[in-house]
Amino acid sequence: MTEQTTPVTEVDQHPERGAYDFDTIAAILDAGFLCHVGFVSDGLPYVIPMLYARSEHSLYLHGSRGSRMLRSLKAGMPLSIAVTLVDGLVLARSVLHHSMNYRSVVVSGTAREVTDPAEKAAALECVVEHLVPQRWGDARVPAPAETAKTLILAVGLDHASAKVRTGPPLDDEKDYGRDVWAGVVPLTLSVGDPDPDAGVEAPVPDYVKKLDRRYGSAL
Amino acid sequence: MTEQTTPVTEVDQHPERGAYDFDTIAAILDAGFLCHVGFVSDGLPYVIPMLYARSEHSLYLHGSRGSRMLRSLKAGMPLSIAVTLVDGLVLARSVLHHSMNYRSVVVSGTAREVTDPAEKAAALECVVEHLVPQRWGDARVPAPAETAKTLILAVGLDHASAKVRTGPPLDDEKDYGRDVWAGVVPLTLSVGDPDPDAGVEAPVPDYVKKLDRRYGSAL
Repeated sequence: MTEQTTPVTEVDQHPERGAYDFDTIAAILDAGFLCHVGFVSDGLPYVIPMLYARSEHSLYLHGSRGSRMLRSLKAGMPLSIAVTLVDGLVLARSVLHHSMNYRSVVVSGTAREVTDPAEKAAALECVVEHLVPQRWGDARVPAPAETAKTLILAVGLDHASAKVRTGPPLDDEKDYGRDVWAGVVPLTLSVGDPDPDAGVEAPVPDYVKKLDRRYGSAL
Repeated sequence: MTEQTTPVTEVDQHPERGAYDFDTIAAILDAGFLCHVGFVSDGLPYVIPMLYARSEHSLYLHGSRGSRMLRSLKAGMPLSIAVTLVDGLVLARSVLHHSMNYRSVVVSGTAREVTDPAEKAAALECVVEHLVPQRWGDARVPAPAETAKTLILAVGLDHASAKVRTGPPLDDEKDYGRDVWAGVVPLTLSVGDPDPDAGVEAPVPDYVKKLDRRYGSAL
């Protein structure tokens, strides 16, 4: 499966940062929530930010009907999907060795529109629960006619690779004696205080209060 | 300039969220630091995360020589560049109206490799200063031979558009009376405690301590 790399997902720079096992790929995808989807239309590249969720060996993308991507969508349209989680700024003694600590996944695959009503409902629930666990059981779930208006794409994870950088800066040997601060500055995602909409009388649910656990490593 | 939209950057979904004035676009680009670059190679889409900085009406991208993108780079290769800053989760009363608050920019343009040594040095400084203001004057700056090994691409901002969502959820009229919590959960970027590399004796510089101001709205 994912151990087999293709020219599209092969890690060609810093191969030591490449990781192809499915558990690593799945963990990164499950921590993130925003992906950037690339596709080709009339020979030109497009990149669109989209929300996603993973279910087993598929990614579900959720978009609006009538979007440019849907208009471009043909059966088997090739997609490239990138998920990038930034963990820190890496300040080296030499500016050229500055870097980021990050976890990233690139998936190449083909789009399949989910049309089966049962799979579509399950995919929508999967996306909502991925973003806000336990929300599906609280907010109003869609009627079948509403679900029909929504676009869900599925992309298999057969061709996916992960790339991870962790740890301190790596400087040239000659620079280690320099009198300059070097190290890692962590970047994390913080969840702020929930801001209720006008007229809301329901208290903030526990699952909303716990969102910092969901998003703490999702940057 | 940027007021002129093209088929590639036109905001086709939620046109009310589209903003095309240059100041809006520049402010979003200056707050962010990570972009996703899409390009086409052998007819297939690729998306690669890259660091960037803006200088006037150009974006500078910084990558490694020998990267797949460089191998694919031809004079005038079309690129699509997306910068997406997430500001919050929007929890609506109906799951289908859940959304994100965000600021995003999409740039379409053609890659130009920066080869002039003076422009290249200035572009590198621009990228480093964008990520960590005042770092260029502290860390070791590159020798000309090192700069020559680095890849810098420039992409003009002539075809760029912004898309912004702010504010509370927008539900169907019939759902406003539901007894369910709805509102916005802010997401922000937090800067953690700097972690010095082994052997570093220099104190944490003030410009590192101030990075929370740089990154507070950069998610």
